[in-house]
Amino acid sequence: MPNGSTTIRRAFDGLERGRPTTPPNVLFILADDLGWADLGCYGSTTIRTPNLDRLATEGIRFTHGYAGSSWCSPTRISLYTGRFPGRLQAGLEEPLTRRTAENGIPADHPTLPSILAGAGYRTAMFGKWHCGWLPWYSPLRIGFQTFFGNLDGAMDYFEHVDTLGQPDLYEGETPVEQAGYYTDLISDRAAEYVAADHGGPFYVQLNYTAPHWPWEGPGDPETGRKIRSRYEQDWTHSPLLHLDGGSLAKYRELVEAMDAGIGRVLDALAGAGRSDDTIVVFTSDNGGERWSRNWPFVGEKGDLTEGGIRVPLILRWPAVVAANQVSDRPVITMDLTATLIELGGAEPHEDWPLDGVSLASWLTEGAEFPEHDLFWRTSNQGALRRGRFKYLFDRRERAVLGNWPREPGDYHLLYDVTVDGRERADLSGQHPDVLAELRTAWERLNAEQLPFPPEHPGLPRRSSTTGPAVSEPD
Amino acid sequence: MPNGSTTIRRAFDGLERGRPTTPPNVLFILADDLGWADLGCYGSTTIRTPNLDRLATEGIRFTHGYAGSSWCSPTRISLYTGRFPGRLQAGLEEPLTRRTAENGIPADHPTLPSILAGAGYRTAMFGKWHCGWLPWYSPLRIGFQTFFGNLDGAMDYFEHVDTLGQPDLYEGETPVEQAGYYTDLISDRAAEYVAADHGGPFYVQLNYTAPHWPWEGPGDPETGRKIRSRYEQDWTHSPLLHLDGGSLAKYRELVEAMDAGIGRVLDALAGAGRSDDTIVVFTSDNGGERWSRNWPFVGEKGDLTEGGIRVPLILRWPAVVAANQVSDRPVITMDLTATLIELGGAEPHEDWPLDGVSLASWLTEGAEFPEHDLFWRTSNQGALRRGRFKYLFDRRERAVLGNWPREPGDYHLLYDVTVDGRERADLSGQHPDVLAELRTAWERLNAEQLPFPPEHPGLPRRSSTTGPAVSEPD
Repeated sequence: MPNGSTTIRRAFDGLERGRPTTPPNVLFILADDLGWADLGCYGSTTIRTPNLDRLATEGIRFTHGYAGSSWCSPTRISLYTGRFPGRLQAGLEEPLTRRTAENGIPADHPTLPSILAGAGYRTAMFGKWHCGWLPWYSPLRIGFQTFFGNLDGAMDYFEHVDTLGQPDLYEGETPVEQAGYYTDLISDRAAEYVAADHGGPFYVQLNYTAPHWPWEGPGDPETGRKIRSRYEQDWTHSPLLHLDGGSLAKYRELVEAMDAGIGRVLDALAGAGRSDDTIVVFTSDNGGERWSRNWPFVGEKGDLTEGGIRVPLILRWPAVVAANQVSDRPVITMDLTATLIELGGAEPHEDWPLDGVSLASWLTEGAEFPEHDLFWRTSNQGALRRGRFKYLFDRRERAVLGNWPREPGDYHLLYDVTVDGRERADLSGQHPDVLAELRTAWERLNAEQLPFPPEHPGLPRRSSTTGPAVSEPD
Repeated sequence: MPNGSTTIRRAFDGLERGRPTTPPNVLFILADDLGWADLGCYGSTTIRTPNLDRLATEGIRFTHGYAGSSWCSPTRISLYTGRFPGRLQAGLEEPLTRRTAENGIPADHPTLPSILAGAGYRTAMFGKWHCGWLPWYSPLRIGFQTFFGNLDGAMDYFEHVDTLGQPDLYEGETPVEQAGYYTDLISDRAAEYVAADHGGPFYVQLNYTAPHWPWEGPGDPETGRKIRSRYEQDWTHSPLLHLDGGSLAKYRELVEAMDAGIGRVLDALAGAGRSDDTIVVFTSDNGGERWSRNWPFVGEKGDLTEGGIRVPLILRWPAVVAANQVSDRPVITMDLTATLIELGGAEPHEDWPLDGVSLASWLTEGAEFPEHDLFWRTSNQGALRRGRFKYLFDRRERAVLGNWPREPGDYHLLYDVTVDGRERADLSGQHPDVLAELRTAWERLNAEQLPFPPEHPGLPRRSSTTGPAVSEPD
């Protein structure tokens, strides 16, 4: 059973296989709001995910994989830019909701797709974008040559409307209509793409909206119609939020449909004879949301406790990485960016240095794992992981010290997440030196980020009680 | 796998067996802060509880068992008095910490032990009391004839000091010293008691402090010494709270030691030939605390979401109740009081009518299950369950609608906990009539309770932000 203390194993047998001479294909699959224990191979006893479980056994399953943020759009920004989301204005949103020229990934910013395209890759995105809106932003403007998907943070699976109730399905930058369950639509497009001949390596970004709300399984078009009709009524929240719907049984359907879609894409890859030389990555954009099982972690999407950022992370690359590997090395979203750029034979832009660390030599040559600090920040929390320790700065009123209500204040906490992924035993009193070191490291990185505006413009916040926005922990 | 939608099964075969003519013995075992999924028979995949699992297979396992409160001392008050804890000043504390003449179960209050003692039972309590302090209160003053245990809400397992660092082990009302792990000490005393001849039926109340903090397994006397020595230092919280200790592995030891102790008591019962005519009840005083697994529920100890009040509940009575039964009938602590009084051949006092409903006829005669409303109240939440629906009144700032921060306010929520024990799909908009009915019923019962004082004197509270104490939901 996976937990925070999985035995360290060498993730591969690099000396025997070595780095290949031609750049590999890349199939990067991103789930939306999928929680830590929502897959069979991560401990779910109720949700069946045979395709992802098999993918894990054919490669490396990371037990300390992390999202770049506890919110969805900042993690996506960290994936494409390879940098901390707080370096971009758009990365401060929790998540991105303002449709303005200030909120997106600028077209002149080097990105994973633009850099790989520059190195000769064919690039395609299928599914959710959520990194800025037209007419200012789209996947095609940061290096994806093909795009079929949605721009907003959520979409009705059948009606294909966004959180404002507007149609949100695009082919490139052109609105299109196509009937069907969204999970299936993008799976089929991705399957078609990976099976085709592109005259060189491809990089496919397959971004499911599953299992994000609304809570609709493949057989629920009626739920979609009901939700869409609610936009015409007086409804307190966006109907897509679907606060009166869903269940654990429905959530299971959403995850299982995604797993089935992934199975079809992997089958297409195998049918085209490309499984061996394709790096397949599967991960989630943040910790699980309300129906997710994040056990044994505390918190969920939006929290910097492990429940908000620890995610399933699977990497398969049969040509290089031996099967049946489990690694507890801490890896974060932007590390994958750095790794894929290096393995693609490309270089990051020197004016936009990556915050992620490439794992390429570790993966392909048996080099030591590149230990490095992992850093996160939201408007009311901060975290830094170094080795087994995690520093957590917390000014939320929600207690993390057990069930006890706590006084408002700034809390500086320290956990050994290799034995206490549940973050219940605060070791700051036992290791004040470690706390101080990690806090200093956090503050140094925090100082490099854009400050949160005084009135944070994201989701409704309890700003009257949480005090000024975070810039320094004191 | 247990969840909120277990199939309804008739819990027994009453017509074949019928009510016995002599009063049964009663062994009531109460765990402390044990969560919903912390036993093997309730879904734990890591904690081994063979004795409790076997107890469940030999009787009824309730899947909708509830604690009388989400805090420990109020639930204990509801157990002994058979009434809502809010009918007593001491029941307003969350939990009881003030050692005054005003905070306890008064000696003139009829109780389960005093009523059973009046009907000829020998009564004994082993373990945790937490219903008031000497010189005003003790188990001996409400009808227990024998007492060996501790008075406070928590005790060091080895040092036997309470939350103030004071020795807290008593024989009757006399302080005593006895070396040993507390779980073992009270198990052995209970085993001895149930094996002895008392010349009539007995009622044993066996109240573990396990798996309540501090986090000490049977092999951790050194942790106890360290905790005790901290009382002499400058330490922000009571060292017993043990905020820098514990782990899931340690928590497992605490639960497994309790299970082993229960095994010895049940063996002693069997050895004395009394298994058949003894009602054994096992339950917990509230939902799980920080290391507990409450899946699939939301919240923990202190919350009126299911994670704070849904608890394991097992009843074995071989003479009457067939083995291998599972029931999803909603049962709450004070129902057990009413049931045991009736099965003991006694009557509740007419001036203190019970709030619990006796299940005796359902258990012994095949009568219809006595459907009734379940009611809870804390200083910032209220709840009422009727049939499949649960009304939840919530003025906490902690979000229950997913991960979204929410504006301060009074929330009136409605869940179908038979299909959504996770309480994520708020049905108040779909069933406004049901919401109104349940809310009215809650308000009627709330009006019968003592009001919370304006400055609630319990644990540290965020009173500056939570507004005035609850008296009415509006």
